[in-house]
Amino acid sequence: MNKEVNIKELLKELSLSEKIGQLQQLASTFFIENSKGELTGPLKDLGISEDEIWTAGSVLGVNSAEEAYEIQSKYLEKSNSKIPLLFMADIIHGYRTIFPIPLAIGCSWNLENAVLCGQVSAKEASLSGVHVTFSPMVDLVRDPRWGRVMESTGEDTYLNGEFGKAFVKGYQGDLSSPYNIASCVKHFAAYGAVEAGREYNTVDLSDRQLKEYYLPSYKESIDEGAKMVMTSFNTINGIPASGNKYLMRDILRDDFGFEGVAISDWGAVLELMVHGVAADDKEVAYKAIEAGVDIEMMTSCYNKELEKLVREGKVKEELIDEAVLRILKLKKELGLFVNAYGAIDERKAKEMFSCDKHREAVKKVARESMVLLKNDDVLPLKENKRVAVIGPKGNSIDLLGGWSWQGKKEKIATLKEALTNRLGENLVSYAEGCHIDDNDESGFTEATRVASESDIVILALGETSEMSGEGGSRANIGLPGVQEKLADEILRLNKPTVVVLFSGRPLEITSLSAKAPAILEAWFPGTEGSTAVTEVLYGDYNPSGRLTMSFPYAVGQIPVYYNYYNTGRPKLPDGEETRYISQFIDIPNEPLYPFGYGLSYTRYEYTDLKLSSNEMTKDEEIVASVKVKNVGKREGTETVQLYIRDLVGSTVRPMKELKGFKQITLEPQEEVIVNFTITERMLRYYDMNCELVSEPGDFYAMIGSSSENTHKVKFELV
Amino acid sequence: MNKEVNIKELLKELSLSEKIGQLQQLASTFFIENSKGELTGPLKDLGISEDEIWTAGSVLGVNSAEEAYEIQSKYLEKSNSKIPLLFMADIIHGYRTIFPIPLAIGCSWNLENAVLCGQVSAKEASLSGVHVTFSPMVDLVRDPRWGRVMESTGEDTYLNGEFGKAFVKGYQGDLSSPYNIASCVKHFAAYGAVEAGREYNTVDLSDRQLKEYYLPSYKESIDEGAKMVMTSFNTINGIPASGNKYLMRDILRDDFGFEGVAISDWGAVLELMVHGVAADDKEVAYKAIEAGVDIEMMTSCYNKELEKLVREGKVKEELIDEAVLRILKLKKELGLFVNAYGAIDERKAKEMFSCDKHREAVKKVARESMVLLKNDDVLPLKENKRVAVIGPKGNSIDLLGGWSWQGKKEKIATLKEALTNRLGENLVSYAEGCHIDDNDESGFTEATRVASESDIVILALGETSEMSGEGGSRANIGLPGVQEKLADEILRLNKPTVVVLFSGRPLEITSLSAKAPAILEAWFPGTEGSTAVTEVLYGDYNPSGRLTMSFPYAVGQIPVYYNYYNTGRPKLPDGEETRYISQFIDIPNEPLYPFGYGLSYTRYEYTDLKLSSNEMTKDEEIVASVKVKNVGKREGTETVQLYIRDLVGSTVRPMKELKGFKQITLEPQEEVIVNFTITERMLRYYDMNCELVSEPGDFYAMIGSSSENTHKVKFELV
Repeated sequence: MNKEVNIKELLKELSLSEKIGQLQQLASTFFIENSKGELTGPLKDLGISEDEIWTAGSVLGVNSAEEAYEIQSKYLEKSNSKIPLLFMADIIHGYRTIFPIPLAIGCSWNLENAVLCGQVSAKEASLSGVHVTFSPMVDLVRDPRWGRVMESTGEDTYLNGEFGKAFVKGYQGDLSSPYNIASCVKHFAAYGAVEAGREYNTVDLSDRQLKEYYLPSYKESIDEGAKMVMTSFNTINGIPASGNKYLMRDILRDDFGFEGVAISDWGAVLELMVHGVAADDKEVAYKAIEAGVDIEMMTSCYNKELEKLVREGKVKEELIDEAVLRILKLKKELGLFVNAYGAIDERKAKEMFSCDKHREAVKKVARESMVLLKNDDVLPLKENKRVAVIGPKGNSIDLLGGWSWQGKKEKIATLKEALTNRLGENLVSYAEGCHIDDNDESGFTEATRVASESDIVILALGETSEMSGEGGSRANIGLPGVQEKLADEILRLNKPTVVVLFSGRPLEITSLSAKAPAILEAWFPGTEGSTAVTEVLYGDYNPSGRLTMSFPYAVGQIPVYYNYYNTGRPKLPDGEETRYISQFIDIPNEPLYPFGYGLSYTRYEYTDLKLSSNEMTKDEEIVASVKVKNVGKREGTETVQLYIRDLVGSTVRPMKELKGFKQITLEPQEEVIVNFTITERMLRYYDMNCELVSEPGDFYAMIGSSSENTHKVKFELV
Repeated sequence: MNKEVNIKELLKELSLSEKIGQLQQLASTFFIENSKGELTGPLKDLGISEDEIWTAGSVLGVNSAEEAYEIQSKYLEKSNSKIPLLFMADIIHGYRTIFPIPLAIGCSWNLENAVLCGQVSAKEASLSGVHVTFSPMVDLVRDPRWGRVMESTGEDTYLNGEFGKAFVKGYQGDLSSPYNIASCVKHFAAYGAVEAGREYNTVDLSDRQLKEYYLPSYKESIDEGAKMVMTSFNTINGIPASGNKYLMRDILRDDFGFEGVAISDWGAVLELMVHGVAADDKEVAYKAIEAGVDIEMMTSCYNKELEKLVREGKVKEELIDEAVLRILKLKKELGLFVNAYGAIDERKAKEMFSCDKHREAVKKVARESMVLLKNDDVLPLKENKRVAVIGPKGNSIDLLGGWSWQGKKEKIATLKEALTNRLGENLVSYAEGCHIDDNDESGFTEATRVASESDIVILALGETSEMSGEGGSRANIGLPGVQEKLADEILRLNKPTVVVLFSGRPLEITSLSAKAPAILEAWFPGTEGSTAVTEVLYGDYNPSGRLTMSFPYAVGQIPVYYNYYNTGRPKLPDGEETRYISQFIDIPNEPLYPFGYGLSYTRYEYTDLKLSSNEMTKDEEIVASVKVKNVGKREGTETVQLYIRDLVGSTVRPMKELKGFKQITLEPQEEVIVNFTITERMLRYYDMNCELVSEPGDFYAMIGSSSENTHKVKFELV
């Protein structure tokens, strides 16, 4: 076959069962013995015949270039159609060289970091035989109990949309190079709204909420050209996504105009039966194909039932043809008909895995993604002081986070090692103090002793990788085990102490934050994460990360997010004390640390907020400008954030919504004017009829350094 | 005027401003000086003129028969139209003689108790000049953080519907007697779904969820004849209820056919502006009247703006006429045109307030509403033992709960007093141990000493009344203060100990429940509550209450409720250990104590679950029967519960839904056959198009003693 393969002609040559085969995705284990892919979901007896393996259209989770080559060649030999297999995998924040988790990348507020992550991942993955990654995940998340918040860029629709596009750009480029891979945006839709933050749980939303807050980020990635979309595990309003015609046809295909391949999440097609909307495999297959799910991942209802359904006239063959054509088109776009082996290159891959360029890339992103939550004159640390590293994350290689199946934990430096590299052995001591998640306090004495003999204490606390990610929902999101008790013991020594947190989610750290003089949220920082932490602690890099997800004051405050509605009885900061307002009687309404928040080693002053006009029409734009000055003593990078509030709408509008942001780097005493163009498009929202409209009236433009620290100015859309 | 007053003719005689006046509700304070009604909501400057007071149509919260008489006579003297005022008040669980809170009444699973509460309340209230009560509250509640769960009968749609009807029946009877009062069902709609359980917060639901779970209980009360409906404070999907045409016109008026009076909640009309869906009073008035809100409570947008809106042709006068006619009709039905003073009788009221009949009634309901959560052979208590009452609820008169503004706390017996009445002073000792909600542990020593000198310990713990009810949302729902620490100290003595909880919500008591040998949830039990507690503890009454709201395992589990969806990856009790299922990794999925749960001093055995046929058609009924035997040694009352599960639906169906319950009282060794008729109506639900349908297929009928303890049998709807 050659580049000019006519996929419509090719389709005609396929038998019905060969066509249905293209819709089947199987794990690499099915094609090769002794494979060891990391599989998710209950592995079921699929009842796939040997023959059906050689009609399958795609492969899930191949482990190496060698294995990919072996599977593809074996397949081309055994398959009748000789249509090359597509290899897909979960490459979420790096393939072998691991970037910080996506939540952390989001906190860098630097879209180039997502592009970089996409490019580096694509290179390493394509050399290893992967054509498609199940990324970006752009699910809006407002519940830190949910483990998969680590995989999202946070609680804001607009920011998730921007980051989604940047990841797609990074992975795909223009797909012309064999080192690009296709991007599968997920999870369609609203998986982040699982009830109680419990993994795979039910989702219920109004249609307006869905369209206003949850769908736009998928749309952005699709408009950017993402080749695939993955269905989510959850129901939406009583219909599981993988059998949800409204979602997958009316919205995804018709409204969004998506022409790429839709794939189910692992086993999600068969799960229509478990959800209770299908009685048997046949009804499952019927509902999923009707809903427009092209590829069935890891279950085989299509293989078993679609042929019968077509023969019985219940499913039109055109429906299957459509799905197959989309898959063939993607294979063609990826160049598979020209070279079935694409960029596969075991040797080159290995070179790339440890190259300086990639290691430098992940370190840069790690530095920029850490968020300084508190700093009472402890940071940056002074060199040449004795440092005690205390805590279960202090000498841990568990720094990569979930979805890093190809990462090599055993090859990365722990925080203690990175500090030793910097300061030399004599200045660094270490005590674990306790484990991550048990009640053993026997190490406290030793930890206290080690800490008391040092000048500076670094308390390295947090979660294991398994405590977030898929299947990692926690009902209690404080520090696990006795870590907070260990912190209490150590903080009692009154040494200059910085808490470094390694976590896959915002944690409940309200009581810790009252006691610790400094806190750095390092997330799961990736392959070079520990070195990046030291660079931030010692001020080589002035921290610039900002939260993209609120840190709740208490788990009982969830959901808490910045773009809430006012309610009819808001709690006003300077309001009179009264019982009858929207509040908890035992804790504040506000999160501990809000969206957009993060400290620096310098300070920025905002003045002179102005508008080019305080009136605009639908066809005009206005410019909001503000003067930002670095009034501290170090160079620093500030993220200037633009929020807008629509004061009166035909439906309730949020208190503020992020509409733009700009990162500026300023020398001490340097000042710049930062401009934001405000367009009518920014003022649109879904009204009560779910129409996207802008409505004349008053708005606030708010510019500042976090969602809770802004200056505001009023303008009118006339 | 006489009984035969023609309200249409009367309407014609009214000026536009007099008509608008009928739509105004003002607190009694406006009509009389030095009144001291308990007011909710931020009291604003209404800008009402003296004249406008004498056109107002109704009064909120009158304090006594005398005051009602005074206001009515003054009004009839000063008002031009001479249309008597309607007096309304929040009489939620008794007027002067206070019943247990509604959540507790629900836990009795005895609808007669709601009828009784309604009747007794109506008598005391009508004698005191009240014509309408803002009750029942039938909001579905799934979030115990919300303070107003105390006012609901719980988490089940069907049960709330049944209790709503019973309350309406109790209050209203046939309204022919002056001792009946009209019932205003509230809060329309879905107030119970406030986000994060935070008072007055935003509500977002799919239309299907709204119709399937939230609306039916309002509909039941309306079908029972409730004369009024109150709007809720919350938004629904971006539109505040009090300006929500879809909710108030399309659903309430058109679908439900409600012809009675719709009233806003306190200040909720003006709050349209605070929500941000109206720019000024005029837009507020326009939106509220268009939405069909007849009476504006405690704000005056109608008074200020409606006349202008009519003159400008923006609001049709017919809309106002409609609203006024509904109000006049209610006044007529209540007999106000015959006797403006109705049943007002200060002397009779006072007699009634302390009468044995009413005190006996509230005690009976209190006994039946308490739920025995745990009992390791501690209860019932033996007489003639030394009892130590320990804890801040042990000698507290705060036993009435929220919404008991006419109750007289100072006249009720504390638990210590009730026990002393029973056992004599020599056998009862008491130590407070700690306060409800501070960190003072100085009383622990004395409490431990007192407890150690007794044979039996009663630990009386819980919340204050102010910690639930309106404005009483808590983010942390454990025992406040150091009460659990006190319990730890006392339980360490290993005395036979029973914890008696007084609370307005399910509490987080997981760790307490692991340690305490016996726990009785007494809720806020009302005027005779402490005596009722002693009657249960000593076995005069064998506890029969069952939870109507789940006790969460942890606050981070919320929402947790029994009629959840299966998800695509359910956690199976006997399932293999795997990460990829719908669960929290740190706590169980199940609540600590489930819906329908409650212990007794005897045991019941369920056998021989049978169906009259395992097939039914849409026109046929089948009968499910089960044999229930009292296999213990005491007489007891068992609540036999019928749940149904629809195995496959066109949309996802819950794991089980309560469809019936029967209370039976059995002597030891007595057995009865309990029958439930299963009708096609019970199998209906709102499908994906929001049509109420039943679908052919398989169902389970499940009968048992709680939602988690049932036997099941399959049947088919053909």
